[in-house]
Amino acid sequence: MNSSRYFCRANIKNLAPYVPGYQPENPDQVIKLNANENPYPPSPQVLEALRSHISGDLRLYPNSRSSSLRRQLAQVYQMKENQVFAANGSDETISLIFRTFADAGDLIVSPYPTYTVYQTAAEIHEMEYRSIETDPAFQIDLQDFLSVNAKLAFIANPNAQTGLLLTRRNIDGFLTSFDGLLVLDETYIDFTGGAESAYSLVRDYDNLLVLRTFSKSFSLCGIRVGYAFGHPQLIEALDKTKDSYNIAYLNQIAAVEALKDIDYMQKNADRIADNRQRFIQALINLSFEVIPSAGNFVLTRHPRLAAQEIYQALKARNILVRWFDQRRLQDYIRISIGTDEQLEALLSALQEIVNC
Amino acid sequence: MNSSRYFCRANIKNLAPYVPGYQPENPDQVIKLNANENPYPPSPQVLEALRSHISGDLRLYPNSRSSSLRRQLAQVYQMKENQVFAANGSDETISLIFRTFADAGDLIVSPYPTYTVYQTAAEIHEMEYRSIETDPAFQIDLQDFLSVNAKLAFIANPNAQTGLLLTRRNIDGFLTSFDGLLVLDETYIDFTGGAESAYSLVRDYDNLLVLRTFSKSFSLCGIRVGYAFGHPQLIEALDKTKDSYNIAYLNQIAAVEALKDIDYMQKNADRIADNRQRFIQALINLSFEVIPSAGNFVLTRHPRLAAQEIYQALKARNILVRWFDQRRLQDYIRISIGTDEQLEALLSALQEIVNC
Repeated sequence: MNSSRYFCRANIKNLAPYVPGYQPENPDQVIKLNANENPYPPSPQVLEALRSHISGDLRLYPNSRSSSLRRQLAQVYQMKENQVFAANGSDETISLIFRTFADAGDLIVSPYPTYTVYQTAAEIHEMEYRSIETDPAFQIDLQDFLSVNAKLAFIANPNAQTGLLLTRRNIDGFLTSFDGLLVLDETYIDFTGGAESAYSLVRDYDNLLVLRTFSKSFSLCGIRVGYAFGHPQLIEALDKTKDSYNIAYLNQIAAVEALKDIDYMQKNADRIADNRQRFIQALINLSFEVIPSAGNFVLTRHPRLAAQEIYQALKARNILVRWFDQRRLQDYIRISIGTDEQLEALLSALQEIVNC
Repeated sequence: MNSSRYFCRANIKNLAPYVPGYQPENPDQVIKLNANENPYPPSPQVLEALRSHISGDLRLYPNSRSSSLRRQLAQVYQMKENQVFAANGSDETISLIFRTFADAGDLIVSPYPTYTVYQTAAEIHEMEYRSIETDPAFQIDLQDFLSVNAKLAFIANPNAQTGLLLTRRNIDGFLTSFDGLLVLDETYIDFTGGAESAYSLVRDYDNLLVLRTFSKSFSLCGIRVGYAFGHPQLIEALDKTKDSYNIAYLNQIAAVEALKDIDYMQKNADRIADNRQRFIQALINLSFEVIPSAGNFVLTRHPRLAAQEIYQALKARNILVRWFDQRRLQDYIRISIGTDEQLEALLSALQEIVNC
């Protein structure tokens, strides 16, 4: 069959899909600091619970609402169960938000730069997407989001790629004036100590959804579980549009158990925050300019060497970092915070590269 | 907060969501024949592979394309890798098909009755959905699907709820005349021996997507992995709209391993087909009318007793079957094919109930 009919929708044909960070076939042979994964393993309790739940019962459907998980989330975060949602990664929640709360052509905004999936998902759903430019230091000014009449605003806090943090007070003030629905993506919030988290504001506002994930701070990218907090009306609507059995059985088990050992998570997140601060100082000592990140990554550039060259030179040394071929970001590399050993190896390599 | 703004889209507000079969908290205390789950456990190789892959590597993202799984599917089914897709259950694939191949307002058709998720997903995506009525014996006439000018046709084969089977020759003939995209859902095809599977027709037609799943014949409802075969252009488009990391790590492992022990699956599927034939005969002996099913379930009614009453009487005896409160189907109960022991217990209960 040489030629074939083209069934694909026009907006999908022209879509540039999200490009995930490169996943090497054998991650043990590289220093992998390109996907903001946690360098420390998940809680041993999680692995133990998974082992003890591998049985013939995999023949059965999982709980369709992930009820145990929602119960546990409600307990840990002191929310009501009807304020809690769970999905197959935050990417599923993001996609559902478009189908649930926005009609084709509605205006969707997010800062530039940020997580590009907001834009990709908006385009798949035929929304009008607009970026709100951050200032030259990549700072978000929430006032800029009030002057456009958006149906949905997606704001990552700390912001993706930059790691810059808005305060809870900023968010609170914004919500009093914003007429649309704010999707506040707190993927990286545990690396800030948590004081600026705005999740509990869902008790006070009906136009706030807060996204969280087990991927980063809980060291569980592999299980694909995201959760969200919001007004019961918002959660109820998401439950109507989600797939019936959206979270597989073992992933529900792992997430519940991770919450039972939340101290383990916070200890690791704090350790990564410490590593980050030492690493930022070391980068500055090598003359790098560093955006002050609150996440488990830093965005950095060298005054002399092109970011793409640094990226390539590190890759040649089996060290993977992320370089985005995008306006403004292309001047920087993004480095995930690894273990001290990984960061020392990276710093040695950078020293070689900048002294070349 | 007593009143709140309503952000939900109008079509979601009025949506009747899909109601999954009841999942009891402790499935061991009931005879569970209500969700077409497989009564036999998955291959021991699957459980062993899962155990050996539980490690700290859960901190890493899974392979975003499920490459090993697609490779294995291509090998087992003798397809090219670019003709293979995989997702978080067929429900994800169904949802993606709407976003990828149909614009709002396009006409979507499927038989009545069938799997209700086609309609629910069509409504979420603001499609025009039309049911094509089956004949009084629930038979599908594919000619009826040619006279409407549909963008997408969803046909389950064997059909959901009835178990009735169209031949491969029927499907082949239909595809030569149909101008839209046919989504052929072969969820239950392994229980037919497989001779009527039309999956290999994707080599000859550019307007065919064949959906398969690990849930039923592979005894793996719990892992939520569906796969699909289609023309490379169709698969490429689905890859643009799917979430980057749509299948969690352990679920990819389980699916790959299940394919490596495909004989185990087929032996179980054949055993269920045998159980089904004996069970149908026993139902007929109790004066039940039975739709001749090729799936792992039967749709049946009693000439005298109302289906809802039978359903309730069985539930009171801790035997769960499915009753659909829907036009035509409400006269029937749907019973999943269990083990011989389960079916004997069910038959004893039915005997009591009909003799009351």
